Amino acid sequence: MRRMKLADLGEFGLIDRIRQRVAPEDDLPVGIGDDCAVAELPPGRQLLTTTDMLIEDVHFRRDWTDLRTLGRKSMAVNVSDIAAMGGRARHAFVSLAIPDSLQVEEIEDLIEGLLQGCTHYGVTLAGGDTCRSRSGLVISVALQGHIPRGKAVTRGGACPDDLVCVSGTLGDSALALTDLMHGRAVDAGLLRRHLDPQARAGLGPALAEHDLATAMIDISDGLLADLGHILKASKVGARLQFAALPLSAAFRQRAGRDRGLHDLSLAGGEDYELLFTVAPDKWAAVQEVAGQAQTPISCLGRIVSERELTILDVDGRQYHPSVSGFTHFPEG
Amino acid sequence: MRRMKLADLGEFGLIDRIRQRVAPEDDLPVGIGDDCAVAELPPGRQLLTTTDMLIEDVHFRRDWTDLRTLGRKSMAVNVSDIAAMGGRARHAFVSLAIPDSLQVEEIEDLIEGLLQGCTHYGVTLAGGDTCRSRSGLVISVALQGHIPRGKAVTRGGACPDDLVCVSGTLGDSALALTDLMHGRAVDAGLLRRHLDPQARAGLGPALAEHDLATAMIDISDGLLADLGHILKASKVGARLQFAALPLSAAFRQRAGRDRGLHDLSLAGGEDYELLFTVAPDKWAAVQEVAGQAQTPISCLGRIVSERELTILDVDGRQYHPSVSGFTHFPEG
Repeated sequence: MRRMKLADLGEFGLIDRIRQRVAPEDDLPVGIGDDCAVAELPPGRQLLTTTDMLIEDVHFRRDWTDLRTLGRKSMAVNVSDIAAMGGRARHAFVSLAIPDSLQVEEIEDLIEGLLQGCTHYGVTLAGGDTCRSRSGLVISVALQGHIPRGKAVTRGGACPDDLVCVSGTLGDSALALTDLMHGRAVDAGLLRRHLDPQARAGLGPALAEHDLATAMIDISDGLLADLGHILKASKVGARLQFAALPLSAAFRQRAGRDRGLHDLSLAGGEDYELLFTVAPDKWAAVQEVAGQAQTPISCLGRIVSERELTILDVDGRQYHPSVSGFTHFPEG
Repeated sequence: MRRMKLADLGEFGLIDRIRQRVAPEDDLPVGIGDDCAVAELPPGRQLLTTTDMLIEDVHFRRDWTDLRTLGRKSMAVNVSDIAAMGGRARHAFVSLAIPDSLQVEEIEDLIEGLLQGCTHYGVTLAGGDTCRSRSGLVISVALQGHIPRGKAVTRGGACPDDLVCVSGTLGDSALALTDLMHGRAVDAGLLRRHLDPQARAGLGPALAEHDLATAMIDISDGLLADLGHILKASKVGARLQFAALPLSAAFRQRAGRDRGLHDLSLAGGEDYELLFTVAPDKWAAVQEVAGQAQTPISCLGRIVSERELTILDVDGRQYHPSVSGFTHFPEG
C-alpha cells in the first residue's frame, strides 16, 4: 500500500481532521475553520500573547526527536512564556510548514503531540495555518492567555535587596544537547529535559496572583542571558552564589569536574524554568506557594543597585564562567 | 566596508532596533521585549485572531519582490482575514526565520515594510520571535483584532435567496503570477495586485457593524474555493452569472479570449477581496456602506437551497471552468 503524504490529504483535509479532534469551549464561540477565531476575554483580565517558532535543524533535529514529543515541546515552550508573565494559557494558533518528506502518520503524530500539550496545560487549539515547505519542518505557535488586570510580572520590577530565585534545576537540557551534538550516549533523564520540557504553569500564576514576584522571566537562553534581561530592564545588578545553583543528580554525575560542562548550568539554554525576584520579607510566602504548586525553588543570591552581575565561588572569590549567554545567532 | 549580517547584529540587537520604532499605545501596557505582550480588550468586544505564514519559494520568491513590499503584504493578508470576520485589526506578532544570505539592510527593509503595513491598517507591532533559518526566509504573522460582541460574520450564515457579492475585481493577482511563472512581461497594475495587495479593512467592519452580511470570507484561494467554504459551512448552494464577475480593464486586456487565463478570475488565488452574502432587501444599504468605504462591489448571483454551485454563461447554459480551486498542496 502506498503511504499517504500531505498532498494526498490536502490542506483542507488536514484542517478538517484537526478540527474534529478539538472540543468546543465556552470562551471560544468560533474556533478552527473560519477566517479568524472569535474568543471571549474573562471580565477584569488582560490578554497575554506570545509566539515562538521552531525550525528544523535550527531548534530541533528529526533524528533526535519523535514528532509527538516535538509537538508537546512546541506547546510547552509557549506556555512557559505565559507562565513567566504570571498568566494562564488559553488559546493556541499553530502554523505548520510541512516538507514533502513527511508521511501523514508523522503529521498526525505531530498534531497528537500538540494536542497532548494543549490538554496538559488546559489550552484549546483555536486556529492556525498549514502549508507546504520546500525545506524543513517549521512549527510556529502563537499562544494567548490571560491574567487579572495589573498583575502581569514584567522583567522590569527587580529592586535592590530582592532575592533572585529559580525553579527546578539548571543545565540539564543543555547538557543533553551537548552530548547529542557530540554523538555521545545521553542520560535518559537529561534527554527528557531537553526534548520534552515542562512549563511551570502552576508556579508562575501563583506568584503573580499573590503579588510575590517583582520581576520574572523563563529561562530559554540560559540563566546568565535571561537574568541579564531582568537586570537591564530593571536597571540593577545582582550577586549570585555559584554553589547555590540548583543541579540535578544526573547533571552532577555527568558534568563531574568538567568545568565547561558545569557552566552549562549558567549559560546553557532551554531550561524553561522560572527565574524571578522577590522582596526578602516575601520569601516564606514564596516557599509556601511553591510548595502548593509542587515546584522546587532555590534562592541564588540578591539584586544589588550597582549594575553588575557578580558570581561568587564558595571561597568568596569571583567566579568567571567559561562561556557566556546562549544565542540562536552565534557570532562569526 | 564589510556588509552587516544578522550574526553581527544579534537577535537582541534586532529586537531592540524594532522596539525603538514602535510607539506605545494605551491598549498595550506591555509590548515588544518581554515574555509576552499585555493588551486590553475594549469593553463589549470579542477578540479575533488569525495567523498566516509566508514561506520563501512557496508563497513568494525573492527575485520577484523586494522585501519592503513583502513586509507590507505579510501584514495585509492577515488584516484581510480580520476584515473578513468584520473586525478591526489591532496587534501583530511577527516571527521571522532569517537566512544567513540576507544582509542587515534587507532585514531592515522587511521590517520597514511590516511597519508600513501596520501604520496603514492602524495595527501595532506587539511582539514576535526572530531566529536563523538554514534555508529560506519564513514570515509568520499572528494578528489580533476585535469586534463588538456577537457581530462576527462567519462562513456559516448564508441563506437561500441571499445575494452573493464581492468587492473589487477578481483574477488580477493570479494573472500576474501566471505571467511571472512563465517568465513573461507582467502588466504593472496586475503585478501590484499580486505583490502588494490591499486588505478591505473598511468594508468588512462596516458590513458587520450594520448587520448586513450573513456570511463572509476573504478570497485567498480563489472565488470557487472560497465560495465553496461558505456553501459548505452554510449548507447551501449558489447560482452565479459568469458575466457578472468583476474584471479589471488590465485583466480583460491581458486575458483576451484565452479561456484558461479568463478562468483565473474564478479559480486564481490571492485576490484578498471580500466575498459575502446579503439578504436581497439589504442590497441598497450594502451599496451605501460600500460607497462610504470607497470600495466597489458587485453582485454575482444568489444562494440556493440545492447544495450545488452552478455558473451560468451569458447564453443561459452552464459554464464549466477549465480549472478548479487553488491550493498550496497541488495533487500528484
